[in-house]
Amino acid sequence: MRATIYGGPGDITLGERPDPQIRQPTDAVVRVVLGCVCGSDLWYYRGESPHALGPIGHEFIGVVEETGAEVRGVKRGTLVIAPFTFCDGTCSNCAAGWPSNCLNGGSFGNHGVDGGQGEAVRVPFADATLVPVPGSGHSDETLASLVTLSDVMCTGHHAAVSAGVKDGDSVAVVGDGAVGLCAVIAAKRLGAERIIALSRNPARQALAREFGATDILAERGDEATAKILDMTGGIGVEAALECVGTGQSMATAFSIARVGSIVGAIGAPHDVQVPIDTVIFRNIGLRGGVSPVRRYIPELLPDVLEHKINPGRVFDYATSLDGIVDAYTAMNERRAVKSLIRIGTAN
Amino acid sequence: MRATIYGGPGDITLGERPDPQIRQPTDAVVRVVLGCVCGSDLWYYRGESPHALGPIGHEFIGVVEETGAEVRGVKRGTLVIAPFTFCDGTCSNCAAGWPSNCLNGGSFGNHGVDGGQGEAVRVPFADATLVPVPGSGHSDETLASLVTLSDVMCTGHHAAVSAGVKDGDSVAVVGDGAVGLCAVIAAKRLGAERIIALSRNPARQALAREFGATDILAERGDEATAKILDMTGGIGVEAALECVGTGQSMATAFSIARVGSIVGAIGAPHDVQVPIDTVIFRNIGLRGGVSPVRRYIPELLPDVLEHKINPGRVFDYATSLDGIVDAYTAMNERRAVKSLIRIGTAN
Repeated sequence: MRATIYGGPGDITLGERPDPQIRQPTDAVVRVVLGCVCGSDLWYYRGESPHALGPIGHEFIGVVEETGAEVRGVKRGTLVIAPFTFCDGTCSNCAAGWPSNCLNGGSFGNHGVDGGQGEAVRVPFADATLVPVPGSGHSDETLASLVTLSDVMCTGHHAAVSAGVKDGDSVAVVGDGAVGLCAVIAAKRLGAERIIALSRNPARQALAREFGATDILAERGDEATAKILDMTGGIGVEAALECVGTGQSMATAFSIARVGSIVGAIGAPHDVQVPIDTVIFRNIGLRGGVSPVRRYIPELLPDVLEHKINPGRVFDYATSLDGIVDAYTAMNERRAVKSLIRIGTAN
Repeated sequence: MRATIYGGPGDITLGERPDPQIRQPTDAVVRVVLGCVCGSDLWYYRGESPHALGPIGHEFIGVVEETGAEVRGVKRGTLVIAPFTFCDGTCSNCAAGWPSNCLNGGSFGNHGVDGGQGEAVRVPFADATLVPVPGSGHSDETLASLVTLSDVMCTGHHAAVSAGVKDGDSVAVVGDGAVGLCAVIAAKRLGAERIIALSRNPARQALAREFGATDILAERGDEATAKILDMTGGIGVEAALECVGTGQSMATAFSIARVGSIVGAIGAPHDVQVPIDTVIFRNIGLRGGVSPVRRYIPELLPDVLEHKINPGRVFDYATSLDGIVDAYTAMNERRAVKSLIRIGTAN
């Protein structure tokens, strides 16, 4: 089959991989319909985080092609969402609600399984991992939103949930990448009244407004802090969502969070210091991390199917597997917020 | 009046201060019954944290001597607990439940007010700050427990509340100082089933057991981590309470916290790095800080009066104002867990 291959920093190619086969009775083989490129794939692409050489891509939806003897929850022909990690559903972390930290899990495009940027994937623990999508004949728009539930929409949701966003809150979202934009959707969905999005890119600003941002700030760093404190009567926001993962973004998030609030952080950290004095002397907590996607999908899926939220709008670039190289470079050069890869058909 | 005076690192003396007077109609003057020495006073004593030269001591109970014209909630003769900070009760932080971060507040023995290690204190915002103690004729044992509600018991409680300790949890308490011991009380009170106290001091170990610790570990650092992981099936504890404030104690707390849990931290930080990779990749949160004591006292006070909890047992050294120098040195040399200062009479 055809699949995207990571050959090291800057080296993405369309190559060949053996067709995946059922190995365990709990496996399913899924034919990929849509994949996409994640912000974290860019860290690998840039050589700023390590990734095994070989298949890549951890976000996809697809159609079940074959199932192992013990698989009960999905069958050949079922349209499914794959969380970006597979999980056994039974270990102590899964049982506690943290499937992305499954003791026997791993992420797609890694840990011996194929990636979502290829034609097919063997999915371990299929019953625990995959979420069947009800209905049929979904529009391209719906399908694009469904693939965001693999990671980016659930990750934005995790930032908002971790920060405890609730009805009537003022929220600031630091980061205008796809996850930051999804965090805007999540904050609005959880009832935030005021949502301040930090962005200096006109297209992303427009999308943030469409998703529910009430205020857009082009300022960064100390200037952004001063502006937000000014906008909030000197108090800061009830929830600051850190959706970048750099030292500056974390510092900004803590500087605009009001006393007693929680910074919800989901950015993979690169040279980040947590301002411990702010934690202790202003009682500002820090929560977040790798999103427990498998737990969140059932909660968010109905809203996608009813078009209450349209996270697929983060895709402003689409191509086929043949265009995979430019799918990466478009994001790397910030020509695209997020690249969709159309691989197979859902129906 | 007589009062303890901080003259710089290593310089604690019993000196003279003018008798405090009502300055604002919302003030009360309180005659101190019991004061004590806090672990944070030792940071000043050792020159490791700054403190204004002059009166010192932020924990006390006392009897109201005089009230300003607008004070309604307490009157001459009322036995009161003073939280370690005064607060106006109306600012946005107070309204949100964070009185120790009051925008118009400050701590006793600082910010222009006398300290609790002296004969009397002018208390700003008396109605918002002071908590009257019901009943009369309280025993010395009860009075000692009441003064812990000024800070140390409420601070241990804050560690447990911040970590989200709930019924049936396994909890580890890092730190066997008075706050760590009070955190043991708090964890038990909130329903923790297993409480692992880290201590290598026999007297503190015994007190931890008396307060509810089910396991005592003398190990530190990596050895403590290995032991606790072993005790918890490799998973870690549901709540790790960081009650020291050093780099090692924070590292230990994060290393023993299970995926998805929260480190409850209340130690004033000295050279602390938060392991951000653990936060993000194991979804371990960090909450805590300066305890909102004024909010917690009404919740804990009945338990003290009914002797359900006996935090006053942390005092293993007692003296009068004349013995203030040794009250500090006993704690500094770890001869004492916490020093009680008997200053006046309650009845």
